[in-house]
Amino acid sequence: MSEHVNITLDEVHRLAMAALTCQGFSQSQANAIANTVCAAERDECYSHGLFRIPLYIKATANPSTDASAVPELTVSDSSVVHVDAKDGFCPLALEVGLNPLIEKTKTHGIAALAIHSVYNIAALWPEVEALAEQGLVAFAFTGANAYVAPHGGVKPVFGTNPMAFSWPRHKQPPLVFDQASSVSARGEIQLHGIAGKTIPDGWAIDANGNPTNQPEAALEGAQLPFGGHKGSSIALMVELLAGALIGDLFSYESSVKDNLNVGAPFGGEFIIAIDPARTLSDGNTEAAQLRAEQLFAKILEQDGTRLPSSRRYEARKRTAANGINLPVSIHEQIIDLS
Amino acid sequence: MSEHVNITLDEVHRLAMAALTCQGFSQSQANAIANTVCAAERDECYSHGLFRIPLYIKATANPSTDASAVPELTVSDSSVVHVDAKDGFCPLALEVGLNPLIEKTKTHGIAALAIHSVYNIAALWPEVEALAEQGLVAFAFTGANAYVAPHGGVKPVFGTNPMAFSWPRHKQPPLVFDQASSVSARGEIQLHGIAGKTIPDGWAIDANGNPTNQPEAALEGAQLPFGGHKGSSIALMVELLAGALIGDLFSYESSVKDNLNVGAPFGGEFIIAIDPARTLSDGNTEAAQLRAEQLFAKILEQDGTRLPSSRRYEARKRTAANGINLPVSIHEQIIDLS
Repeated sequence: MSEHVNITLDEVHRLAMAALTCQGFSQSQANAIANTVCAAERDECYSHGLFRIPLYIKATANPSTDASAVPELTVSDSSVVHVDAKDGFCPLALEVGLNPLIEKTKTHGIAALAIHSVYNIAALWPEVEALAEQGLVAFAFTGANAYVAPHGGVKPVFGTNPMAFSWPRHKQPPLVFDQASSVSARGEIQLHGIAGKTIPDGWAIDANGNPTNQPEAALEGAQLPFGGHKGSSIALMVELLAGALIGDLFSYESSVKDNLNVGAPFGGEFIIAIDPARTLSDGNTEAAQLRAEQLFAKILEQDGTRLPSSRRYEARKRTAANGINLPVSIHEQIIDLS
Repeated sequence: MSEHVNITLDEVHRLAMAALTCQGFSQSQANAIANTVCAAERDECYSHGLFRIPLYIKATANPSTDASAVPELTVSDSSVVHVDAKDGFCPLALEVGLNPLIEKTKTHGIAALAIHSVYNIAALWPEVEALAEQGLVAFAFTGANAYVAPHGGVKPVFGTNPMAFSWPRHKQPPLVFDQASSVSARGEIQLHGIAGKTIPDGWAIDANGNPTNQPEAALEGAQLPFGGHKGSSIALMVELLAGALIGDLFSYESSVKDNLNVGAPFGGEFIIAIDPARTLSDGNTEAAQLRAEQLFAKILEQDGTRLPSSRRYEARKRTAANGINLPVSIHEQIIDLS
């Protein structure tokens, strides 16, 4: 038997809240973070679950972080909604910005949300999934710290720069992907290190620019973009969208700001939402969803294929039946912080 | 000396017009196509240059193709502009749709253009470059015929599904990428075949699902997405955006419609444009462009890196100085069609 405790999602939420509020987070910041941590535990995305609570707390070591920030919403006559996170964390800024974004999107057919001045160490799939639950198609983009070398180079410039996308499915949870523009997420390399495992070929280079399978050398060197120059182009696109386009930091600037090296990237997040009711000439969204189901069936009729997010939804069913199996080490760490 | 003729861009345009109009294209369809062919020759993108004229003509063998179609524009109160291409070709539909898209984007901050019922065998970079020339950030997405196996599968479902992106640079031509979500463009495999060369590992599998280096076997089998499951997710995203989201065909449906196998995909193109003046809280687009230049400099200070589209702009300078060197074989082929 591995050492785990079996707890409910409500207990996950209570554990997260207790630790965060004890460590100086406001109720509203803590509650928003606890919600994303619960969603991650529910879907067995462990690196974004309670494992991440100590990282949120570590992030407050940076004197510019405001764990009690009250995000400021600006809605103008344009279709771009702005939320200034005021040096707080992204989950609360999203809570403030998503509904106005949905409203703008339903009014105009396409709209955007720019989140500014935010510490962002959460995954992007919760927000695009939430938008698709409202019948919208959505993209989300955010930078990180400088971890990834541009294609052809050896020194980190880009963040791991995830891009997420969602599609509202017919009578099923949305299709969602949320993928780093590096070969692997940074958390995956850290988890390999913790587990004492080497990392696969192609994930990273060391500080001298040589290929490495050692997690520590990889974290000190540079991760590589996925798919060579094409993934590198996507990483660059994410820098521009979440950085220069909305007036926020690039990943290499976030690294400079993070001079305590707490690993909590600071910058912007950019979200686009689209209402199929306006992109379809006939406005028949149900028919469009049914057509998409035909495409999904066409993919899945081949052995070895799967749809993005299917693993999360299978995990969600398991968790609903069996609860959360949390490693005792993390359980004790969270309780110690409370 | 290889056998080339040196001609001007004006001559490229005249050659394209003569062949297309002689083969039944209307003046306006032919002119729009000739413009994109000129842009491709100018930038040394040979597979989209005069080389492509015979493919446009071959596409009219399909009885549903209308080489004299007059695209129909619909502008509503939403931020989504629609152009029904009426079974004609994409360049003219873009000519009709881009200005209304620019207007909507400048009014609302973000807007979209859905092009419907279109034959599309052109590259996507001309339209996103044109949007960036107007100071906008842009994306474009389109499907193809079913050429690419989803990750884990062996039978083609996706098109090569390019995604293009542009960023308006400060006093320089826009940064643009236009990349297939397959490892290689289909045209590259065809060009390898014509040159009697094998294709690199990882590009494709044969009809039995085994890796192949033979261009013909690759064209009969399936191309592979770039970067494994991540490129496959992007290919799927493009299917949804250019297909179900706007009520147009998926790539595998385009293949069925193309029962003469002329290789001219039919479906939709989806474009998103964003005005930095509305995504920046201070509206200072020049400052944002200058910040982006710092990012580009940070990338380029490393040996071995380059920016997407830099090769095209270098070619553009060469062409302006030296004219177009067209293979005699293509020159004769175009004249024969005229």
